[in-house]
Amino acid sequence: MTKWRDKIHEIIFEADTPLARLFDITVLIAIILSVIMVMLESVKSLDQKYDNYFYVIEWVFTIIFTIEYALRLYAVKKPWKYATSFYGIIDLLAILPTYILVILPYQTNYLIIIRILRLLRIFRIFKLVQYLNEGKVIITALRASFAKITVFLSFVILIVMVFGSVLYVIEGNTNSEQFTSIPRSIYWAIVTITTVGYGDISPVTPLGQAIAAIIMLLGYAVIAVPTGIVSMEMVNASNEVTTRACKGCGDDGHDDDAVHCKYCGEKL
Amino acid sequence: MTKWRDKIHEIIFEADTPLARLFDITVLIAIILSVIMVMLESVKSLDQKYDNYFYVIEWVFTIIFTIEYALRLYAVKKPWKYATSFYGIIDLLAILPTYILVILPYQTNYLIIIRILRLLRIFRIFKLVQYLNEGKVIITALRASFAKITVFLSFVILIVMVFGSVLYVIEGNTNSEQFTSIPRSIYWAIVTITTVGYGDISPVTPLGQAIAAIIMLLGYAVIAVPTGIVSMEMVNASNEVTTRACKGCGDDGHDDDAVHCKYCGEKL
Amino acid sequence: MTKWRDKIHEIIFEADTPLARLFDITVLIAIILSVIMVMLESVKSLDQKYDNYFYVIEWVFTIIFTIEYALRLYAVKKPWKYATSFYGIIDLLAILPTYILVILPYQTNYLIIIRILRLLRIFRIFKLVQYLNEGKVIITALRASFAKITVFLSFVILIVMVFGSVLYVIEGNTNSEQFTSIPRSIYWAIVTITTVGYGDISPVTPLGQAIAAIIMLLGYAVIAVPTGIVSMEMVNASNEVTTRACKGCGDDGHDDDAVHCKYCGEKL
Amino acid sequence: MTKWRDKIHEIIFEADTPLARLFDITVLIAIILSVIMVMLESVKSLDQKYDNYFYVIEWVFTIIFTIEYALRLYAVKKPWKYATSFYGIIDLLAILPTYILVILPYQTNYLIIIRILRLLRIFRIFKLVQYLNEGKVIITALRASFAKITVFLSFVILIVMVFGSVLYVIEGNTNSEQFTSIPRSIYWAIVTITTVGYGDISPVTPLGQAIAAIIMLLGYAVIAVPTGIVSMEMVNASNEVTTRACKGCGDDGHDDDAVHCKYCGEKL
Repeated sequence: MTKWRDKIHEIIFEADTPLARLFDITVLIAIILSVIMVMLESVKSLDQKYDNYFYVIEWVFTIIFTIEYALRLYAVKKPWKYATSFYGIIDLLAILPTYILVILPYQTNYLIIIRILRLLRIFRIFKLVQYLNEGKVIITALRASFAKITVFLSFVILIVMVFGSVLYVIEGNTNSEQFTSIPRSIYWAIVTITTVGYGDISPVTPLGQAIAAIIMLLGYAVIAVPTGIVSMEMVNASNEVTTRACKGCGDDGHDDDAVHCKYCGEKL
Repeated sequence: MTKWRDKIHEIIFEADTPLARLFDITVLIAIILSVIMVMLESVKSLDQKYDNYFYVIEWVFTIIFTIEYALRLYAVKKPWKYATSFYGIIDLLAILPTYILVILPYQTNYLIIIRILRLLRIFRIFKLVQYLNEGKVIITALRASFAKITVFLSFVILIVMVFGSVLYVIEGNTNSEQFTSIPRSIYWAIVTITTVGYGDISPVTPLGQAIAAIIMLLGYAVIAVPTGIVSMEMVNASNEVTTRACKGCGDDGHDDDAVHCKYCGEKL
Repeated sequence: MTKWRDKIHEIIFEADTPLARLFDITVLIAIILSVIMVMLESVKSLDQKYDNYFYVIEWVFTIIFTIEYALRLYAVKKPWKYATSFYGIIDLLAILPTYILVILPYQTNYLIIIRILRLLRIFRIFKLVQYLNEGKVIITALRASFAKITVFLSFVILIVMVFGSVLYVIEGNTNSEQFTSIPRSIYWAIVTITTVGYGDISPVTPLGQAIAAIIMLLGYAVIAVPTGIVSMEMVNASNEVTTRACKGCGDDGHDDDAVHCKYCGEKL
Repeated sequence: MTKWRDKIHEIIFEADTPLARLFDITVLIAIILSVIMVMLESVKSLDQKYDNYFYVIEWVFTIIFTIEYALRLYAVKKPWKYATSFYGIIDLLAILPTYILVILPYQTNYLIIIRILRLLRIFRIFKLVQYLNEGKVIITALRASFAKITVFLSFVILIVMVFGSVLYVIEGNTNSEQFTSIPRSIYWAIVTITTVGYGDISPVTPLGQAIAAIIMLLGYAVIAVPTGIVSMEMVNASNEVTTRACKGCGDDGHDDDAVHCKYCGEKL
């Protein structure tokens, strides 16, 4: 009995056996298909035509996810801890909306928010990504550059707050329909510095345009900073992953041109 | 006879003799000119004026491509295999529309799709690019970074799906003419995270704008990842292409112009 | 007495003791909260509802900043020099508007400019950032690349002036509502080369669009330059921060975690 | 006499003596000021007010540039060769418009094109840039990456042609006011792939938007390529400029970790 449970646990919660990987991929596909269905259902013209089909497919996925949820509850050693964990709640939310619709019909508008949370389950695939060599380098580099990018983003937010406020004051009177408040002006500054540039809000006074030009050039030059950070960390991560191990102490991470092990001095 | 055929085969299908390169460049120019003509023909004002010229030029190019197609069929050892290959079909499609127009005139609107496929023939030039030293490093780096960029793009698509859905729910009611469905909202999210920012769809509620600001800053920071990947692989590719090992000490990593090993002084 | 003053000086003006850091963070939070309040006050709907709350909160922050300003004046050895320094003036401007409002009420529209200057006080946090390891590499890299990026930006401004003028001449007649003057055309060129692209000004003539396409592709290729500069300096800065020289052979470039020299095996 | 002429030649045409540099900077400032004046003159409201001032200032600059042009003609050994060279013609064009206006008044609209060419004289400053250490690395890196970026841009132009044509066919009927011709659709594709995104042309059909999303993601991933190229070359250029010379053969360009000269094998 315990062996059976262990087997299920291994298949569902781990990712390094072929069966476990197959399970992960199956669930992943089911999530993606169910999410695509929710998306297509939101298109009015399709919803009117294929209403019945959507209803049936939704139930099929709900039953699959219900079985998966039951298996997870059964396989895990502390069911309550799992049920109250982040993924436990997400897993429950993935199946709840369909059942709620049986009791309280015609409320899809509000339940769509919960059904969309099903998307968060996709983040489980990163459990898979960890085992891919490609993901390893990216994740190592991102983890290493996280602190630096946070410092950088704080700086960007500061710039955006200053420039947003300045443009609110400059454009506020002549362009009152666009720069109506400081938060809205900051939204404009973010749209501008990230070079998105919708054009729904844009300065019309010469002074406002001159300052906008400065923030654009700043954003243009400043984009180089996170790129520089990640490039650097990527090179570091790549070196770490691909280098030689020392025969003396077994440690790796030596440079390409190293003659001696940097930990024990043994010749490589 | 076979020698003659071999000669034609060498000229048409290979790219490392002067004559073969000349042929490639001639065909390339013919393709580009014929494509430019198709493009100019789509401009209504030009089409009305120079209708007759376009007709004549189109026939000239069609005859050139027909001769080329016939030569290819003749030179290749297995004509049927070529005719059913990707480029074989593209080559046939490049000449078909003009002949079809003789039988079924006044249907240019539909045939333009096939005439545009002629553009795909330009991809043959990459056969040339392979022999350029510059292309080599780029292709090596792109091939090496392909897997990593795929992982990265999957992650971007996931973010875009989550944020698109969230904005559909937030903006759906107040801004019903823009965020009409989840696929459309995802289209908006892609327009935003890639910093294109048309402005045809843009959030109007304060909450929607706040979340849009997050996706923008995310896109701004995240653009660093593919750049970091390609930079890293570019450095690697550049090293790989130019690296020779020393016979004395076995070390590599010497510069292109090195005469002696930089570690032991041995002649390379 | 002097000891007491020294203690206050240490807490307020330095950043390497726990108490000093606590003080910095407290002031930082107060600044951010007070700035957020100024921002929310600019939203008309919120201002009408919570007018009284804003009034009270503003006074609370003003009193806090007044005490802070008094302490700074008291702790510093040359109060007059501090009062006339950049941050001294900013600190005074942070508290002045509220007091001015008592004497001259109902003039918030003009005083908002001064209240926004309060934001400049946030730049004090960079005093903190210097002590973060992450900030160190970024600042070193930015300082090293500053000159190169200035040269680069001069070049971009030159391009933008040439292209802006050319489009003024081309589009000036047919598109007179958009490219009304050369400065405005240069504003457009900056919006375009930085890939912001509001769309408030965009060329309509075929020739104008062709030249716009050139400036776009130029901007697209040229963005690589500051990124390349910062990436390079970031790698250099990262190496500089972590480099130790070997006592045996004198070589440097060892990793942070190296125990032995990687060239001669000598203990570091 | 010849000595005097040599002195003038040195001051005007070279850039490595203090006097020559002073002359370059003076002319540079005169050019910038005269160009700013041309720009301000294009603003209708300013032109109406300060018409007379503009007239006087224009004459002052014209006289300065005329003297400079005369000195250049005098100092150079082959005046005719200089007069017919690229910069010789630009220098002449910088002064001609004002004199033409005396003979043929009220034709500023056409002459503005020639007056703008004055901007090209600014490119002389790059003569100065060569002597700046910062410019050296950038120029070396750009020269080295020029071929690779050309290959890359050809590839981008190819993509843009294919996608532009595809969207012309897809959007042509339903969206006939925007995707009116293939060249216009290609203009849209360039606006999109470079992430400028004006929004003056944007797809409205679901299929068109889906393909537009692909081109955006492509542009987003592909921007990494030129950045990677320039980053790599920048690192190479930086190494080249900053390395040690060999005592044996005098050559430089050795790696940081080289023990022996890579050209003659001499110990470094």
